Amino acid sequence: MNILLTVAYEGTNYCGWQRQANGVSVQQRLEDTLAALTGVSVRLTGASRTDAGVHALGQRAGFKIEELKIPVEKLPRVINARLPGDIAVCKAEYVPDTFNARYDAKRKTYRYVYNNAQYPNPLLRNFSWHVPQRLDIVKMEHAAQCLIGRHDFTAFCASHGSARSHVREIYAADIKEEPDLVTLTVTGSGFLYNMVRIIAGTLMYVGTGKLMPFSSQPALWDVEKALRSRDRTLAGKTAPPQGLVLLEVTY
Amino acid sequence: MNILLTVAYEGTNYCGWQRQANGVSVQQRLEDTLAALTGVSVRLTGASRTDAGVHALGQRAGFKIEELKIPVEKLPRVINARLPGDIAVCKAEYVPDTFNARYDAKRKTYRYVYNNAQYPNPLLRNFSWHVPQRLDIVKMEHAAQCLIGRHDFTAFCASHGSARSHVREIYAADIKEEPDLVTLTVTGSGFLYNMVRIIAGTLMYVGTGKLMPFSSQPALWDVEKALRSRDRTLAGKTAPPQGLVLLEVTY
Repeated sequence: MNILLTVAYEGTNYCGWQRQANGVSVQQRLEDTLAALTGVSVRLTGASRTDAGVHALGQRAGFKIEELKIPVEKLPRVINARLPGDIAVCKAEYVPDTFNARYDAKRKTYRYVYNNAQYPNPLLRNFSWHVPQRLDIVKMEHAAQCLIGRHDFTAFCASHGSARSHVREIYAADIKEEPDLVTLTVTGSGFLYNMVRIIAGTLMYVGTGKLMPFSSQPALWDVEKALRSRDRTLAGKTAPPQGLVLLEVTY
Repeated sequence: MNILLTVAYEGTNYCGWQRQANGVSVQQRLEDTLAALTGVSVRLTGASRTDAGVHALGQRAGFKIEELKIPVEKLPRVINARLPGDIAVCKAEYVPDTFNARYDAKRKTYRYVYNNAQYPNPLLRNFSWHVPQRLDIVKMEHAAQCLIGRHDFTAFCASHGSARSHVREIYAADIKEEPDLVTLTVTGSGFLYNMVRIIAGTLMYVGTGKLMPFSSQPALWDVEKALRSRDRTLAGKTAPPQGLVLLEVTY
């Protein structure tokens, strides 16, 4: 049997999705719970390796098991009864034997939240990046548009990433403004290590005037120049993890 | 000098606003920080005594002090640098000597959040009440309308409250629906002990069909009957504290 789970979690108290020697990961907590439930050792394949402090509403994780003794649709309720409150399984379904939760992912959507107010909102401290300077949304929208399409995103990738190719496609990047909040929602074919957080950090630089968003050939402006340069030092800093949520993975 | 603060906090890790012998309160944390900052003992008067686990975005708290050695508009930044991340002062202003943050409050607005989805959202676990049964918003709106106006709210007051009169006026009670969320926003002249949480619990009973919302004289339906009865046992249960936020106090 090959089973696919949809998982939501608050990442605050975990060292990230992936199992690590130091610290408790979401993967470990879920695998241990599934093992206790089924009586056999379970190995999960996650769609996305979210960092420490990053959250998920639509993470996907697959596992293979000889036999599942309860109906698959009852799995979420039974697992959730054994999980801590900061992790919840929202769906469980059978998938074909060849299905791989990581490699078969076609697109992923992430959301990044800026708390754009003079003083930080304590209710959002684990779910946003507090930016006290007023963000210029129009400039941020222009910069987001530069990133759409198929590009080599080396300038937006942490140097210790392991991907062989740095070419990815971004399908959509939207900025939304609400009172004291700015939200970036980005959908792509896949993302390099720290890529969404570097995009979020770069757009923050654009919104506060540290970088210019948009090109008018032949003089390229900062964000397009950074993208073309493949030079990490020309993009903005890596935004902190707690503003990031993995919303959806599509197969 | 009489100074009024606007305070935001996440109530999760506190025993409530008010100082208590057992447990750390928001009031104590703020008073201790102000004392360390000013060098004199400070006694805060809060507008609302929020319970353990209840949050605030617009709590007000006043204190008197002989002399403030920093400009009042710089007070938020200086206090916030010394406060933990779950409390923030958003505003500080001088008020007349006779001003009392508690007794001069003219109206208060609270928000209650239901996480209305089959499985709980882990990101909302400290900020909502998970109600898996589908809530009927139209019925909840009808019931909320019954409560508007000047009434004796004894049926919506915890028995160990200390108020002399149970008459309060509710100016507005709005229900809003978003995906997986239902939000109640209620504004009144003041609220009895646990009153907003009992209203939220009663509206949850209405939304799930345990109580009927609306009267057509002479046969009164459940919510109006409960209100007129002044009998606490006829209203719904007290909703859990983590769904509640004090949004605003008006003077």
